Amino acid sequence: MNNLKDIKPLFGVRTCATSANLGPGYDIAALALDIYNEYRVYAGKSNGTGNNSRHSIRFTGPYASVLDKEKSSSKLLQRAIEITLGKFPDRIKDKEKNLEDKHYFDIEVIANIPPGKGLGSSASAVVAGILIANKVYGLDLNKRQLFQTAIGIESSPDNSAAALSGGLAIVYRSKEGLLFEKVRLSKEFIILLMVPPSETGTDTARKLIPKKVPIEDAIENISNFSLLVKSLEEENLDDATIFIRDNLHQKYRKDLYPQSAGLVADLIDNWQIPAAISGSGPSVIAIMDRDRFKEYKSKRGKMTGKYLAFKSIITSISDRGSYYI
Amino acid sequence: MNNLKDIKPLFGVRTCATSANLGPGYDIAALALDIYNEYRVYAGKSNGTGNNSRHSIRFTGPYASVLDKEKSSSKLLQRAIEITLGKFPDRIKDKEKNLEDKHYFDIEVIANIPPGKGLGSSASAVVAGILIANKVYGLDLNKRQLFQTAIGIESSPDNSAAALSGGLAIVYRSKEGLLFEKVRLSKEFIILLMVPPSETGTDTARKLIPKKVPIEDAIENISNFSLLVKSLEEENLDDATIFIRDNLHQKYRKDLYPQSAGLVADLIDNWQIPAAISGSGPSVIAIMDRDRFKEYKSKRGKMTGKYLAFKSIITSISDRGSYYI
Repeated sequence: MNNLKDIKPLFGVRTCATSANLGPGYDIAALALDIYNEYRVYAGKSNGTGNNSRHSIRFTGPYASVLDKEKSSSKLLQRAIEITLGKFPDRIKDKEKNLEDKHYFDIEVIANIPPGKGLGSSASAVVAGILIANKVYGLDLNKRQLFQTAIGIESSPDNSAAALSGGLAIVYRSKEGLLFEKVRLSKEFIILLMVPPSETGTDTARKLIPKKVPIEDAIENISNFSLLVKSLEEENLDDATIFIRDNLHQKYRKDLYPQSAGLVADLIDNWQIPAAISGSGPSVIAIMDRDRFKEYKSKRGKMTGKYLAFKSIITSISDRGSYYI
Repeated sequence: MNNLKDIKPLFGVRTCATSANLGPGYDIAALALDIYNEYRVYAGKSNGTGNNSRHSIRFTGPYASVLDKEKSSSKLLQRAIEITLGKFPDRIKDKEKNLEDKHYFDIEVIANIPPGKGLGSSASAVVAGILIANKVYGLDLNKRQLFQTAIGIESSPDNSAAALSGGLAIVYRSKEGLLFEKVRLSKEFIILLMVPPSETGTDTARKLIPKKVPIEDAIENISNFSLLVKSLEEENLDDATIFIRDNLHQKYRKDLYPQSAGLVADLIDNWQIPAAISGSGPSVIAIMDRDRFKEYKSKRGKMTGKYLAFKSIITSISDRGSYYI
């Protein structure tokens, strides 16, 4: 691989972290966050190894070493590119003229999203792969096509939707398959992520959810989620603290992340801060306004004593979602 | 009983019809409608029969004969008055001075809400009883107290909430028990109620709902209901037609009201009109804007052929809910 630092990239893609579920919105809601992975695409050459790979991937940035070791993110990115091309072969522009050159490109991933923490790192890789294929091969896909390609690859439609759209994405089933709506939320919200050192496997977490649930629990989540959306739109965090309570997933998984579950309860019950497990955990997401943040900062010493091992990240809601640079 | 026509009532109460569930909002949502029962309260005298009843009730209006025969509505009204007094004995004003006289009053009910059709006739009677007790005995109850008294008497918190608040009421569970939020919706919506001759017993209907439901069904209802609220707020009936679909109650009860279930499917699939079973049925509620209503009127001959036995009522959403006159 060339020394990428000296070469200008052809283009870049920025895909954001996402926090799925938000309490009662299990499996259908995710919030886009202002933490971005950046994917820089450089013209490449055949690597001459004779294997199928048309592009090399290398990681830089804070989480480079984790991703280098795990390989899953680079496989996901690779797969997303291949699947996108396989899904829309007829849309590939200038096939005859350009494909040969474009077959080979190198991708530098500046990894800022903590992987394996329930912050949508996988969805970010998938969406990046699709957007890269879309640009390199001139596929000109619309948002619906981008989304439906993503959900064919990644098991979290909510994360993919939010990564694409920004804001709060709500996924729903229609006659044309899964689609999503975006709800715009205030840029003023201060988002606190509390990230413990452990990791949660999405598959393990998924297996803990029962196939059938008590109807009262379902009913409570329906009213809570609809009112959570309303309260967040109205920037009423007192109400959001009531409505972020959930009965459908967090209680079944709490042994996976006992400390995170304790932190969520602490934030809601003792701090009146709306909080939830982010995705399938173990990170915790908390939503604050200025007043709550001020109070949190002045008192957090007392709290973080209990949660010393957690790394805290302060961010905001991304209204933009993923985009080309 | 005196001839009430010649006497001026002390005061009156108007309580509205309500349509619960609205598809995915099973057991937590209801819409207040501009169809009102009126309760006129007249000074009365001991009936001298020595029984416990302190007030006589008589029905007039379109559904008087049904209510006279069934007695359940007058019992519910009676019970609501007694329970309200029993719940707030310390709030009764001027106990010494006035109670003796006020012990006896006569109520004339002008019944405009079709009973037994899933249109909140029972909730209307309960709310009326509470409001009557509140006024006669000067209890000065706030909305929360009125609501929490109602849900102690009636099994449909959603209907009671909407009857009290107007608009779209969403009930939720908090530390202080059940509460509700009101969502204001457009007065421009045209509400079509299709009322078949049959009746559905709420208890029978309730028994058909399983105690546990597939989690995918719960999840779909969560996104559908939250997006239904959003689409109705935005007056987007195309979207509402998608989101009014439900997986938690209507499919389990469809044998109770096969024709109504067919009509709901027809309205949604063939007319693109958001529609649902009203409460536990058998009435059907459909929400239209002017364009849809125009189209409906021009084509309904074709449709009502199939649904000839249904009586159609055109109304609108009540933003006011119940009130004193």
